[in-house]
Amino acid sequence: MTHSGYGVSLSPQEIGDAMHAFIARLYPICRSITGHGVRETLRVIQERVPLTINDVPSGTKVFDWTVPLEWNIQDAYIKNLRGERVVDFRQSNLHVVSYSRPIKQRMSFAELKEHLHTLPDRPDWIPYRTSYYKESWGFCLSHNQLLQLKDEEYDVCIDASLSEGHLTYGEYFLPGQIQDEVLISAHVCHPSLCNDNLSGIAVATFLTEWLRAQPRRYSYRILFIPGTIGSITWLSEHREQVSGIKHGLVLTGVGDAGPITYKKSRRGDAEIDRAMVHLLKHSGQPYKVVDFIPYGYDERQYCSPGFNLAVGCFSRTPHSQYPEYHTSADNLEFMKPQALAESLSYCEAAIEILEQNKIYLNQNPFCEVQLGKRGLYRAMGGQAGEKSMEMALLWVLNLSDGRHSLLDIAERSHLPFRTVAHATSILREHSLLVSGPEQESRS
Amino acid sequence: MTHSGYGVSLSPQEIGDAMHAFIARLYPICRSITGHGVRETLRVIQERVPLTINDVPSGTKVFDWTVPLEWNIQDAYIKNLRGERVVDFRQSNLHVVSYSRPIKQRMSFAELKEHLHTLPDRPDWIPYRTSYYKESWGFCLSHNQLLQLKDEEYDVCIDASLSEGHLTYGEYFLPGQIQDEVLISAHVCHPSLCNDNLSGIAVATFLTEWLRAQPRRYSYRILFIPGTIGSITWLSEHREQVSGIKHGLVLTGVGDAGPITYKKSRRGDAEIDRAMVHLLKHSGQPYKVVDFIPYGYDERQYCSPGFNLAVGCFSRTPHSQYPEYHTSADNLEFMKPQALAESLSYCEAAIEILEQNKIYLNQNPFCEVQLGKRGLYRAMGGQAGEKSMEMALLWVLNLSDGRHSLLDIAERSHLPFRTVAHATSILREHSLLVSGPEQESRS
Amino acid sequence: MTHSGYGVSLSPQEIGDAMHAFIARLYPICRSITGHGVRETLRVIQERVPLTINDVPSGTKVFDWTVPLEWNIQDAYIKNLRGERVVDFRQSNLHVVSYSRPIKQRMSFAELKEHLHTLPDRPDWIPYRTSYYKESWGFCLSHNQLLQLKDEEYDVCIDASLSEGHLTYGEYFLPGQIQDEVLISAHVCHPSLCNDNLSGIAVATFLTEWLRAQPRRYSYRILFIPGTIGSITWLSEHREQVSGIKHGLVLTGVGDAGPITYKKSRRGDAEIDRAMVHLLKHSGQPYKVVDFIPYGYDERQYCSPGFNLAVGCFSRTPHSQYPEYHTSADNLEFMKPQALAESLSYCEAAIEILEQNKIYLNQNPFCEVQLGKRGLYRAMGGQAGEKSMEMALLWVLNLSDGRHSLLDIAERSHLPFRTVAHATSILREHSLLVSGPEQESRS
Repeated sequence: MTHSGYGVSLSPQEIGDAMHAFIARLYPICRSITGHGVRETLRVIQERVPLTINDVPSGTKVFDWTVPLEWNIQDAYIKNLRGERVVDFRQSNLHVVSYSRPIKQRMSFAELKEHLHTLPDRPDWIPYRTSYYKESWGFCLSHNQLLQLKDEEYDVCIDASLSEGHLTYGEYFLPGQIQDEVLISAHVCHPSLCNDNLSGIAVATFLTEWLRAQPRRYSYRILFIPGTIGSITWLSEHREQVSGIKHGLVLTGVGDAGPITYKKSRRGDAEIDRAMVHLLKHSGQPYKVVDFIPYGYDERQYCSPGFNLAVGCFSRTPHSQYPEYHTSADNLEFMKPQALAESLSYCEAAIEILEQNKIYLNQNPFCEVQLGKRGLYRAMGGQAGEKSMEMALLWVLNLSDGRHSLLDIAERSHLPFRTVAHATSILREHSLLVSGPEQESRS
Repeated sequence: MTHSGYGVSLSPQEIGDAMHAFIARLYPICRSITGHGVRETLRVIQERVPLTINDVPSGTKVFDWTVPLEWNIQDAYIKNLRGERVVDFRQSNLHVVSYSRPIKQRMSFAELKEHLHTLPDRPDWIPYRTSYYKESWGFCLSHNQLLQLKDEEYDVCIDASLSEGHLTYGEYFLPGQIQDEVLISAHVCHPSLCNDNLSGIAVATFLTEWLRAQPRRYSYRILFIPGTIGSITWLSEHREQVSGIKHGLVLTGVGDAGPITYKKSRRGDAEIDRAMVHLLKHSGQPYKVVDFIPYGYDERQYCSPGFNLAVGCFSRTPHSQYPEYHTSADNLEFMKPQALAESLSYCEAAIEILEQNKIYLNQNPFCEVQLGKRGLYRAMGGQAGEKSMEMALLWVLNLSDGRHSLLDIAERSHLPFRTVAHATSILREHSLLVSGPEQESRS
Repeated sequence: MTHSGYGVSLSPQEIGDAMHAFIARLYPICRSITGHGVRETLRVIQERVPLTINDVPSGTKVFDWTVPLEWNIQDAYIKNLRGERVVDFRQSNLHVVSYSRPIKQRMSFAELKEHLHTLPDRPDWIPYRTSYYKESWGFCLSHNQLLQLKDEEYDVCIDASLSEGHLTYGEYFLPGQIQDEVLISAHVCHPSLCNDNLSGIAVATFLTEWLRAQPRRYSYRILFIPGTIGSITWLSEHREQVSGIKHGLVLTGVGDAGPITYKKSRRGDAEIDRAMVHLLKHSGQPYKVVDFIPYGYDERQYCSPGFNLAVGCFSRTPHSQYPEYHTSADNLEFMKPQALAESLSYCEAAIEILEQNKIYLNQNPFCEVQLGKRGLYRAMGGQAGEKSMEMALLWVLNLSDGRHSLLDIAERSHLPFRTVAHATSILREHSLLVSGPEQESRS
C-alpha cells in the first residue's frame, strides 16, 4: 500500500509515523463530550481536512436525550495542608472524573476517599471515569498514589464549569458521482486516551485525505463526534439524510498491536460486512469477525432499529479486552505506527471494494468466449494446471449473468476481490462485459 | 423450581417424591389399549385432575383403523401337573402377552414353547409383548424361569375376554385467554411399566395441577390416551378442534436417570421445538436434540402429514435405547424422583416461554433510549464490562422492531429467555415497549 | 450390479473387461478435434450404438468461435542424417503436437529444440501437447530421448494437412415417455490417451446399451464430441433443443483406480447433483464432491451462463491431479476394469434415481395407515428396534404430502434411495400412494 493523498506517495512506515505524530499532537488536549477540548481537536483536524465545525445548544432535544450543559475545566488538584499538590490535573487530565461539578473545599481524608477512583490490580495506572448524566465529582489516581495519602485534611479543587453552551462536532462531506453515501464515524470525546479515540480520529483523517485524491462513485460523509450523544445528536438533526447512507464504518481502537476485529452491522450480511470479511479472509493475518451486539461504540445508534444502517465497527483488540483500556496506559507508546498504517489500508481496501462492486453482463453468455484469439489464454494446450488470472477471467464471464456482483464472484471463486476486479477491467477493455443495471448493484 | 399447584409450594425433592408415590400407586394396575385397567388408571388421575373419561365403542371407524374389541383379564397361569403355578399372572401382569385370546388347555411343553417369550441376554427379566391386531396368545417369562421348565405336560390358562366394549381415554381442557391450545399427551396403555407410561402420566398430571394455578394466555388440552389407537381415535373424533392446537408435547420416558432427549416436531422449527432447544442449551446439563422420525410415540399421529401439528416428544433416554425398556426392569426402582421433578420443571419452563413469547415494539426506535435517566443504567461511566441485565435491556430494545419475538431475541443474544422476559417487563413498566400485533406473535 | 444390455446379463468383472477391450481397440487411433481419427472412433462406437455421425464445415461460426480447418496426419518423424528416426510418429501419436502444420526441413538441433516438449520430472513419459488455435508445429518426446539427441543436423518431417473440411461428432437419441431429456456427453478428441477420453467413451457407450434395454421415462441424448469446440458447435447448432435438457453428465476420467469425484453443476443443487451426492454418501466408499468451477471439460459450455444446464461432471481422480494426466502413461495399464465397471454402475444408479424420483400422495394423510392389517408390519408388538423397510414405509407415507419427492424423502430419512423407491412401490401396490402432479416432480 502506498498513500497518495495530496498527490504524495508515502510508504506504510511513513504513513504510520505520520499518524502517530498526529496522535501525539492531539494527545494532551482534555476532551469530553462537550467543551473547548473537542473544538481544539477539530481545529487540528481542520489543518488536514476542511471539515465544518457545528455547535448544537445545550438543552436541545435529540430523540430520547437532551444535549447536556457544556463542561470546561481549567485546573484541578488535591493539596495537602502543606500546599503540595498530591493529585494534579496539570500532570494528567485523567485525574478528574469527566463532567465533575466544580468544587473548592477542605475535607477529611475519609470524606475525600468517597470520591477517589483507583485500579488496585494495576497500581501504577490512572483509571478513566466519567459522570455525564449524574451530577457528581471525583478524582482518579494510581493506586500507589492513593496508598501514599495520609489520613489528614486536604484542600480539594476542581475549577470547572458546567453551563449552557454547545455540543460540538465536525463533519466533512465529499461528493461522488452518485448521492448514495458511505459514512465514516470516529468519536472525539475522550481526554488523553490514544487507542480509544485518537487512533480512530487519525485513521479517519488520513482516510479522508486519501479519499479526496481518489475518483469516487459514492459520496462520503466523515463525522468526528462525541460518542453516543454526538451520534444521537447528528442523527436527530439529519434524519432526512440518513436514508442516503448505504454503507458505513465506525473507526475505533485501530492503533494497538492486536489483530483486526470486525464487528458486523445489525443486518449481518450488509455489503460492508461482506467486503470486510472478504478482505480479512484473504489477508493471511489472524483476525476476528464478531456479530453485532447492541453494546460498543456509535454503531449502537446507527444500528438502532429505527435506522438499521449498514454500519459496522472496525477495530483491532475490542474495547475492554485489553488491560490498557480506559487507563493512563492507553498512551502514545501503546500506539503502533505499523498497526495504524495497516488499519488505514484495510479501510481503503474496503472502500475500493464498495466502489468497484458492481454487476456486469457477459455479452457472450452462450458457451465460453474464445479468450485465446484475444491473447487472453495460453496458446499451447495440454499442460496441466490453471492460472489464476485465466481462472478469474473465466469466473467473471461465467457469473456475469446479471445476478452476481463482483464481490459475489470473489466469494464464490475464492479469489481475492482485486484479482476479480482486474479481470473485469481486462474483459471490459475487450468489450466482453458491460455494466449491468446500476440499481441492482446496490441492493 | 418450586411447585405451587393448589397454592402449596413444594421443593423439587418433595415434588419428585410425590410423583414417585403416584407412580407406585398406578404400578400394579394391568393396563392395555382398552379395558378396566385404563379406566382405573384414569380414576386415580381424577383424584388430582378433574378429567372427563370418554368411551368410544368397539368397531368405530377411526381413519384407517377400527376401535378394537375390549380386552380384560382376570387371571392367567401355567401350571404343571402337580398343580404348581410355574408362571403366574398374579405375580406380574407382564407374564401375559397383552390382548391374548382366552385359553384353557393342557398341552405338551413343545406346543407351549411356541407361545413363550423370554430375553436370553437378560435372563432375570420378563419381557413385555403385545398382540393387539393379530389374534394370538402367549406368556412372557424370565429366561431363567424357562430353563427350569421340564419337558412335561402343562395346564395353560388365560382367563381373559375379548368382546365388544370401548376404548377409553381421559381428557382435560383448561381454558386460557385465547382459544389457541397447547396439547399435552401421555399414553396409558402399558401394564406394570414405569418409565414407559407411568412417568409420562405422572408428569402430565402434576403439570396440569401447576397449569391450573397459573395465569394462562393459551388454553391447554391434556390427553391420557392409549398409544397409537388412542391418539388416532381422539384425532378422528375431534378433527374440527385440531386446528386450534398451536403447540404440543408428548410426554414419555421422563423418569429414568438419563439426560433429556427432545425429539423435534415434523416441522423441525416450530416454536415448541425452538423453546425446548433454547432451554436445553442454557441448562448446563447434557442433553440430546433429535430430528423427527415417523417412529416413536403418539407424535407419529399428531405429525402425520394431514395434521402436521407442532408437537414434539419430550423424554429422557429414548425408548429402546435403555436395556430396561419393555421389560420387568422398568420398575419403581428405575424411576428417580429427581429426574421426574426435573422433567416437570422443563415442561413448565417451556410453557412459560410459549406463554411469554410475544413481539413487542420499541416506542423509541431511533437511537437508544436513555436508560440512565430512568435508573436502568449505571451512573458512573468508563468502567469496562457489560452487565447482563443492561445487555438484556439493550437487546430487547434493539430487536423489538416488530419482527422479533422474545424467543428470537433470546436466541440472537444468547441470553436465557427468562432474562429477556424480565428485561421486557422492566421496559414495559417504563412504557418503553408495547405489545406488538397479537397475530404475528403466533405465526 | 448386473448388466443386461441386449438382454445379456454380465457380471461387473465381465463388463469391466469388455470395456477395457473396447478401450484397447480405440487406443491406437490418432484423434484430434477434427479429422479421420474422430470418424474412425465414431464408426467403432457405431458397432455397439447406432449413432449418427455429423459433419460441420470448417469456417462455420459457432457463437464466439469458428469451426477450424480439418487436421489429418499420415506420418511424422525426426531423422538424423544417418537416416535413423530418433522420434517416430508411428511409435506413438503423442509424438506430434496436435494440429501441427506440415513441415519438411533439415535444421540444426538448436533450431529444432525450440519445437521439442518433454517432461524432465517424468523422464520416461511423452507429454501430450496441442496447438489448435495458433499455427505452429512441434514434437513431444520423453526427456530421456531428448538427452540422447546430439547437437547435429536433423531432417524434420510432419506429413500432415490443415485444410477446409469438417468437425465431426456422434449423436444418439433414445426417446422415452416424455420429451424431457437427460444428456450424456463424452469427448473424443484425444489421441492415445486412455483415461482422458477413452474411459468416458467406453462408459458412455456401455451406458447407452444399458439404457436401450430399460423402460424409460426420460428421453436420452448421448454425445460423442470433440472437447470444447465440439460442445460449442453442438450447442450452437441445437439451441432450440437445449431447453429440453433437464439433467446431464459429462463423463471423463472414469477408468483410473482413484475414488469417484463428482463436480456439481453451476446450479449446485440440481437434481442430478443431489442424486450423485446421495449415491456417493451411501456408497460406503471414499469419494469427493466438488463445487462447480468454470474450468474442466465440456460442463464449461453446458454451464455457461446463457445455458446454465443442470449438467455435472462425473470422474474418478480429477484431471491434472494424477501424474499420468496428458502423458503417455495414461495408457491401457492405467485403466482398471473394476473401476470402469463401478463408474458405469454409478451412472446407471443415478439414472435410476432420476427415472424414479417423483412426488407421490399419501391417500390417508390423517394419522398413520394401519400397515399391520395389510401384512406390512410385524404382528408382535413390544420388541425394541425398528426395521429398515418398515421405517421406509413410514417415511414415505409421512412425507408424501405433495411437497417431497422420493429423493427428498431419502435425504431426510437417511435411507438409500432404492429402499425408499422399493417402499414406494409396495405402497402403490396397496393403493396407499398415488402419483402426484407430474410438473412438480420436475422443478
